[in-house]
Amino acid sequence: MSLLVVGSVALDTVETPFGRAERVLGGSATFFSAAASFFHPVQLVGVVGTDYPLDELHFLRERGVDLSGLEQQPGESFFWSGVYSFDLNSRETLETRLGVFADFQPRIPEGFRDAHWVFLGNIDPELQLDVLTQVRAPQLVACDTMNFWIRGKRDALLALLERVDLLLVNDGEVRELSGDHNLLRGARWIQARGPQLVVVKKGEHGAILFTRDLIFFAPGFPLEEVFDPTGAGDAFAGGFLGHLARAGSADAAELRRAMIYGSAMGSFAVERFSVHRFLDLTQSEIQERVRAFRELTAFEHRVPLEAHA
Amino acid sequence: MSLLVVGSVALDTVETPFGRAERVLGGSATFFSAAASFFHPVQLVGVVGTDYPLDELHFLRERGVDLSGLEQQPGESFFWSGVYSFDLNSRETLETRLGVFADFQPRIPEGFRDAHWVFLGNIDPELQLDVLTQVRAPQLVACDTMNFWIRGKRDALLALLERVDLLLVNDGEVRELSGDHNLLRGARWIQARGPQLVVVKKGEHGAILFTRDLIFFAPGFPLEEVFDPTGAGDAFAGGFLGHLARAGSADAAELRRAMIYGSAMGSFAVERFSVHRFLDLTQSEIQERVRAFRELTAFEHRVPLEAHA
Repeated sequence: MSLLVVGSVALDTVETPFGRAERVLGGSATFFSAAASFFHPVQLVGVVGTDYPLDELHFLRERGVDLSGLEQQPGESFFWSGVYSFDLNSRETLETRLGVFADFQPRIPEGFRDAHWVFLGNIDPELQLDVLTQVRAPQLVACDTMNFWIRGKRDALLALLERVDLLLVNDGEVRELSGDHNLLRGARWIQARGPQLVVVKKGEHGAILFTRDLIFFAPGFPLEEVFDPTGAGDAFAGGFLGHLARAGSADAAELRRAMIYGSAMGSFAVERFSVHRFLDLTQSEIQERVRAFRELTAFEHRVPLEAHA
Repeated sequence: MSLLVVGSVALDTVETPFGRAERVLGGSATFFSAAASFFHPVQLVGVVGTDYPLDELHFLRERGVDLSGLEQQPGESFFWSGVYSFDLNSRETLETRLGVFADFQPRIPEGFRDAHWVFLGNIDPELQLDVLTQVRAPQLVACDTMNFWIRGKRDALLALLERVDLLLVNDGEVRELSGDHNLLRGARWIQARGPQLVVVKKGEHGAILFTRDLIFFAPGFPLEEVFDPTGAGDAFAGGFLGHLARAGSADAAELRRAMIYGSAMGSFAVERFSVHRFLDLTQSEIQERVRAFRELTAFEHRVPLEAHA
């Protein structure tokens, strides 16, 4: 039951109120793989330039990430730099240089085409659609997108959604895509266009899963220090799909757990710059955080013997 | 184990994207009592003018709310009017006329002074303090406040907090009071000044309880239509304290349930104007909503037999 991710492998320069990190590992496929690899082997497809510090990806290979779909092209790697506000709730992009990513045409290696679980990181929806012509019979296709594509490539995005099982987006993207400020109605609007499953990520306010039959809410994990929010959404997706791939099922009980594993991995991602927290993270730390999530919301429901009035 | 509320009994004129309601029942003590009365008898202390439609409070008396502490004074009742933005996330106050409320000096009737559970609605912290000199040995004192007092009467508010067990405030108020943008650190700051319990209300994003030993999160209930957010926070407080009074305990398990009952009553409050939803609300609807809250966050945590890597 293989798990495939197609997305960006980038270098980030990030400034937060707590410090600055220069040209560190970034990109959706990188964060996704780092998180998902704690649950299941991952097959990665992406592109980097000749400047990429490939040796720094060695930890992914050690964790069972197959990097044979990572092309290296002449030129510069995708580079992003940004600065976060004092409360980390907004960020300003200082520079984006697409480099070799500008001409990225995902080629799925023959050995990856039978992937059961597919995550399409946030790239041009036309490329996301093209990936789906190369994989044979995936059990579940998940994708991310952003306002840039919602505005600029709406038709391609809607065509993609018809072939997607799970859309993971943030609350602002749901509102922009659906034209509805109410998240519940916005999610129903998206479901009517294809994806049976919609996960709305709300940052510190948690995440909500909408299926046809249930709504599940995972809180944001209360942290005294959020160090760097970059990559939290992709780490969430990695924990979510990594768990489903490991479980071999996307039934209701596993989807609930996937929301918690996704939230746990997102909460680890923000504790340090880049993917640094995943370098020494342990399985028992993950289990401990899942237990903490359970304590956050568990209550025993007793119907009172005599209700007043 | 009596439950006392001291707060405003007002008339509101409210405009939302869905309509307009003129001079309808409002005020913290009104919303609190309407919600709490589903759980436990309530003793109300407040003031109204000669213009108040006292007959409209009859439903409270029928539900076990003792209105003998509601004074009527010559003059106009507290009047508030406001208009909500299209997404209901912000509101503009058009008019506030304090009327008889400007000279409100809460007098707790002798029969109310042994109250076990006390809720101090959002009024001048000096008056809130004065109430505490009149009650004898409350088991738990809860209070609300607002930015106006945090800025204008900070010293009185800090003196009050030393004598309060539970502070219920919204996220912006925690940040303003503590001077810390991080809610967890902000709540710890407040706890160090007196209240062992802090509930942070985040509107559609839910509510968080901080005790010395636990953090509990209740999600915002996903509603397709939020009709009028006015009074949701006071209805939350009513469900929360009403449940504790009924249970006769504020132990960890009851506090968790109180968060859910509070959230449930808040979610009902916003379904119609004023306290209208509470006029025909039933106990079985409340239980049904608590079950729905449980479904929103319940998951079974299984440690995987073999974790990858």
